[in-house]
Amino acid sequence: MTNTNREWVLAARPDGEPDLDCFELRETDVPSPNLGELLVRTRYLSVDPYMRGRMRDAESYAEPWDVGDALKGGIVGEVIESESDAYDAGDLVTGEGRWADYATLDADDVAPVDPTVADPEAYLGVLGMPGRTAYFGLLEVGEPQPGDTVVVSGAAGAVGSVVGQIAKRNGCRVVGFAGTDEKTEWLTDDLGFDAAINYKTTDDYGDALDAAAPDGVDVYFDNVGGPITDAVFTKLNLDARVAVCGQISHYNDEEVPTGPRKLPQIIAPRAKVEGLLVSDFATRFEVASERLGEWVAAGELRHRETVVDGLENASDAFLGLFAGDNIGKQVVRVAPASGEE
Amino acid sequence: MTNTNREWVLAARPDGEPDLDCFELRETDVPSPNLGELLVRTRYLSVDPYMRGRMRDAESYAEPWDVGDALKGGIVGEVIESESDAYDAGDLVTGEGRWADYATLDADDVAPVDPTVADPEAYLGVLGMPGRTAYFGLLEVGEPQPGDTVVVSGAAGAVGSVVGQIAKRNGCRVVGFAGTDEKTEWLTDDLGFDAAINYKTTDDYGDALDAAAPDGVDVYFDNVGGPITDAVFTKLNLDARVAVCGQISHYNDEEVPTGPRKLPQIIAPRAKVEGLLVSDFATRFEVASERLGEWVAAGELRHRETVVDGLENASDAFLGLFAGDNIGKQVVRVAPASGEE
Repeated sequence: MTNTNREWVLAARPDGEPDLDCFELRETDVPSPNLGELLVRTRYLSVDPYMRGRMRDAESYAEPWDVGDALKGGIVGEVIESESDAYDAGDLVTGEGRWADYATLDADDVAPVDPTVADPEAYLGVLGMPGRTAYFGLLEVGEPQPGDTVVVSGAAGAVGSVVGQIAKRNGCRVVGFAGTDEKTEWLTDDLGFDAAINYKTTDDYGDALDAAAPDGVDVYFDNVGGPITDAVFTKLNLDARVAVCGQISHYNDEEVPTGPRKLPQIIAPRAKVEGLLVSDFATRFEVASERLGEWVAAGELRHRETVVDGLENASDAFLGLFAGDNIGKQVVRVAPASGEE
Repeated sequence: MTNTNREWVLAARPDGEPDLDCFELRETDVPSPNLGELLVRTRYLSVDPYMRGRMRDAESYAEPWDVGDALKGGIVGEVIESESDAYDAGDLVTGEGRWADYATLDADDVAPVDPTVADPEAYLGVLGMPGRTAYFGLLEVGEPQPGDTVVVSGAAGAVGSVVGQIAKRNGCRVVGFAGTDEKTEWLTDDLGFDAAINYKTTDDYGDALDAAAPDGVDVYFDNVGGPITDAVFTKLNLDARVAVCGQISHYNDEEVPTGPRKLPQIIAPRAKVEGLLVSDFATRFEVASERLGEWVAAGELRHRETVVDGLENASDAFLGLFAGDNIGKQVVRVAPASGEE
């Protein structure tokens, strides 16, 4: 094993849209695991829109990164050296680690990856944080009832694609917004969405919603914000629920963005609009992971990962999230499986 | 008894801010009660901000008025003639009736007024719809916990003044926004608010909130919208609840108003923002009325009515709501008590 490691650090805080100057790939030594830790060779790492918030110098739910800090996120890796009884060398695990070739993780903070359920990269998407976000966000905040119309923005993303499929399981009519015809076709043809709207080629979102959601909107699962959300708010039914999971269209705004005021619109329908963070459901992650795993293993819950190859391209993969480059979960393949090298 | 009656009709739909041309006082005959009905001489009638919505040609929770329609709202009146066993001539009742000297009401739709609990006009405020709105809106949507900081906009109004006092009963720190020093002094000196902010003489609402609500905002009861609400949303604590009861600052807007987007602000605190209509709690009105009545009778819940004299001045009283002329509940005295004429 080489002793050379590479890891990404925050080189500069972005001003508005991040660019490659914000990132630096640094050479370091491979770390040594302490007692209770695992040395892991990263197979896949996850890039997620919420990480944009950690690049900002402002307290939020996730600790902000300082300039010079190593970037961290969900990873899937192979145990190279174990200082824990819980895992052996060769095991595949998932947890929070650095964007690096090698990382040490506390054995208590990782979960096993079972490649017979799904390919390992799925543990960063449908079987990871995004899948659990979709599960709890839709079911606990959106509270979909059979017959409800559920609208999802960012529907072809890691979270939205799972939200729509769980809503279908619950007997809902499901409408998704996405940004390419390839994505909208995936939603309707492969995932079973009732309708999908390409927001980049559609002029009037209100008209499109009237056609796709003729009975109005009972649940809106919002990953995006902006004009899509503005249009959906004018279609909310009595007792509508809005789960605000993400607002990716605003993450690069440096000023507070303005838009149509929504509070006057929620009184008549008595709509409930609620911010959502998956960590609030941490005590129940196990049940979600188990169900999602069963559905995936049975082929009932479809998933897709967009893979960028090479740790050196992680920053590009991250920036691509804001351009909508990904279908399903965006991951970076850092190393091939053992034996494939 | 005279046979001449007067009643207000909608003369024209307002364009933006309503003016006197929107209203016409029409002479009619005194109506005759049918079986099960009461003929009532109006003592007080209620003017409420939500009525602005009924003047608009758009479906909402309250049926829009057509031009030429009689205006209706909460009234307190004395039964002149009863075609029901439930009430006798001389009884005081409250219900929904026309803005008129005399009106017929279905005996099933009225409630008795007990002048030993409070002056009859209080049945249009603290003991009427506004009081129940405060009760259910705060307790069921706001869910205040002891130690919470509760902020109320329109705090010196019919609803807000009750919200703040119930929040104090629940062990909360209470901060109100109001538009005159007389109002803010009433809030802090008479009603027990911990702090009150005169939004007309305060430059920076954010700074004012930092001083008045140093631990942030757990519950926001919003009657107003606009810049006050914009400032409060930047101070929401983890798990904050926002009860959107009214948005009086926007009721006269003809275009959809714009302002800072709030959805990006509610994710980190996982805030819940919910539209509120008191009619959703109709099955439990009795318990609210009973408790509010007990608190008022015991002198524990203070209330105030701003009285305009004369049915002919009802339109002025309504317009005054948007200028903030009222402290507490705005009512119109249509007739003095019998014996006082």
